[in-house]
Amino acid sequence: MRSVCCSAPQLAGLTPYDPKYLPAEAVLSANENPHDVEQEVRHEIMREVKRVALNRYPDPLANDLRDMIAEANGLDRDQVLVGNGGDELLFNMALAWGGPGRTFLNLPPTFSVYEANARLTNTTVANVPRRADFSIDEEAVLARVAEGGIDYLVVTSPNNPTGELAGETFVCRLLDATDALVMVDEAYFEFSRQTMRPYLAQHKNLVILRTFSKAFSLAGVRMGYLLGDAEVIREFVKVRQPYSVDAVSQAIARVVYANRAKFEPGIRAIIEERARVVDGLKRIPGVKPYPSDANYVLFRLENAGIIWEMLYGRGVLVRDFSRAPGLEDCLRVSIGSREENDAFLRALRDAVMGKCDLEVPSA
Amino acid sequence: MRSVCCSAPQLAGLTPYDPKYLPAEAVLSANENPHDVEQEVRHEIMREVKRVALNRYPDPLANDLRDMIAEANGLDRDQVLVGNGGDELLFNMALAWGGPGRTFLNLPPTFSVYEANARLTNTTVANVPRRADFSIDEEAVLARVAEGGIDYLVVTSPNNPTGELAGETFVCRLLDATDALVMVDEAYFEFSRQTMRPYLAQHKNLVILRTFSKAFSLAGVRMGYLLGDAEVIREFVKVRQPYSVDAVSQAIARVVYANRAKFEPGIRAIIEERARVVDGLKRIPGVKPYPSDANYVLFRLENAGIIWEMLYGRGVLVRDFSRAPGLEDCLRVSIGSREENDAFLRALRDAVMGKCDLEVPSA
Repeated sequence: MRSVCCSAPQLAGLTPYDPKYLPAEAVLSANENPHDVEQEVRHEIMREVKRVALNRYPDPLANDLRDMIAEANGLDRDQVLVGNGGDELLFNMALAWGGPGRTFLNLPPTFSVYEANARLTNTTVANVPRRADFSIDEEAVLARVAEGGIDYLVVTSPNNPTGELAGETFVCRLLDATDALVMVDEAYFEFSRQTMRPYLAQHKNLVILRTFSKAFSLAGVRMGYLLGDAEVIREFVKVRQPYSVDAVSQAIARVVYANRAKFEPGIRAIIEERARVVDGLKRIPGVKPYPSDANYVLFRLENAGIIWEMLYGRGVLVRDFSRAPGLEDCLRVSIGSREENDAFLRALRDAVMGKCDLEVPSA
Repeated sequence: MRSVCCSAPQLAGLTPYDPKYLPAEAVLSANENPHDVEQEVRHEIMREVKRVALNRYPDPLANDLRDMIAEANGLDRDQVLVGNGGDELLFNMALAWGGPGRTFLNLPPTFSVYEANARLTNTTVANVPRRADFSIDEEAVLARVAEGGIDYLVVTSPNNPTGELAGETFVCRLLDATDALVMVDEAYFEFSRQTMRPYLAQHKNLVILRTFSKAFSLAGVRMGYLLGDAEVIREFVKVRQPYSVDAVSQAIARVVYANRAKFEPGIRAIIEERARVVDGLKRIPGVKPYPSDANYVLFRLENAGIIWEMLYGRGVLVRDFSRAPGLEDCLRVSIGSREENDAFLRALRDAVMGKCDLEVPSA
């Protein structure tokens, strides 16, 4: 037939998630680790990959890796689930706790994928926007859950793209105030050193999401994990694709997790560079960086879209949020290597100054 | 909180897909290729994997691989989509063409994942069962689509687990009779040498699913692909996870696809062994094998569940369908190496004979 019936109505007008990945000398747009896995660990990775039986299906639940993560977190295997990146686990949550007639509570501006997943699964989205400084409007969130009808929510800590932590006291109050499933997305927790893990034992409705993509330099490999109550994990297992995490990724992640102490100096360097970048941003007239506990910094300045273009023209790719609701005039820069950060700060200073010069004649 | 609200109602009573993977000397349960990728190709794989920047996100759409597949199939890039195994693309279809108020037409007995995906996405399932010999009840299917209200269906060719091809003439009639999206699942097409690809140009409602898991020995790597109309592919892109196919899997699949001619002798060997296994099954009293165009054979015999146990006791793992609706008394054996197939046939003959001996006293 020359035609095909329409896809599902929730897809109408939807545009696929666009990472806006462009080639550049300094790619500072995707919150990746600027350094690849070090040579010694890579050699071990290659040895392990060589041993994988490519022709056999992977262990569906990646139990060896699960056990390693469980042990490191003082949990049992059935309190851990690995996914094809944190992304898969986020989508699984929408499938398992969302759906028609159910409601997701969103705290924008935050990671846009949460809302996209809700829409794809016909989940109603309720919004409690953050305050002007991007802090969570805690009383408004508590008031909204008290109204009832919320099935799940995500508290991103540190929040992406704005950078600040959620307060531990607030998250505890929230967990007591609702039986909705509360995911704390700790994708960047290695850079903040703060986690809600100690609270798992008391809160069945708490799940924690983490990833190998940032601190562990494995964005290319896709590996995320969930910590939570065994009964909650079981519901996630029901909706997941059985073989979503391939055998090679499992092998790579096992090596990296076993060697995770070796990533500490790199993490510390990023934290130090972050302070330097924030400081550098503050010194550029008209640029307002927001405090960050992650491996990126959001900053606000006039004509952000034009500045983004000028930075890109200088070989520096940052993330443009200037047209995103609540993030007007904002750009986000990932913390790169010292050289990349210098290149970024130099290019930004020049762009801001150059921009001022250009505007003089037209003023 | 000590409790958590229930997950979505469609999960109640659902049990996760269980591949029933058990350790055994001869694993003939998952339709894997018995041979891993050959050494020369594996060396090339290792060279490519070494070059992957693990710390960078993968190309979301795997365009290099897409181009290779498109070229081999006489299509453009936008008529191809790769997925995290065929599984992801099957689920994407349920997300994009299913959902509340929409209907999936199932032709059981067939691959159980289609129906599971429909249920997870709140899609109504309409069934047109196959005939006793597992052939599609063609007139009943055409009558059902003529009634209207079907949004998508899957024609599995060869069908899993029963083994027979769908008739080309029938599929063409079906494509003309409905504007529902018709997926032809050709996961095993390398063993059947038959494809609906030549019909893509005339039928916007046709998509073809293929996989690297079987003929190309990459079950562990998770790589599937879809061929279809560019507008249909675009809808699949809307619902997919942006980074579902990791960078290492992309690299491995590129090497394997470039070397796909090297897999031909292995495919031919499996086709030859299949004939030998069917022949061997026919020689065992009370065993009825079904004709197969894939890399597995379904067979029926009395006390199949007990026979399964006896085979497993002898180190041979086959797939037990004896309690699956419409497949009572059926087991499925994947075509393994010559030695594995011999071990299977020997163990089955002994089990059937031993079983007869055992029954003599109680008769």
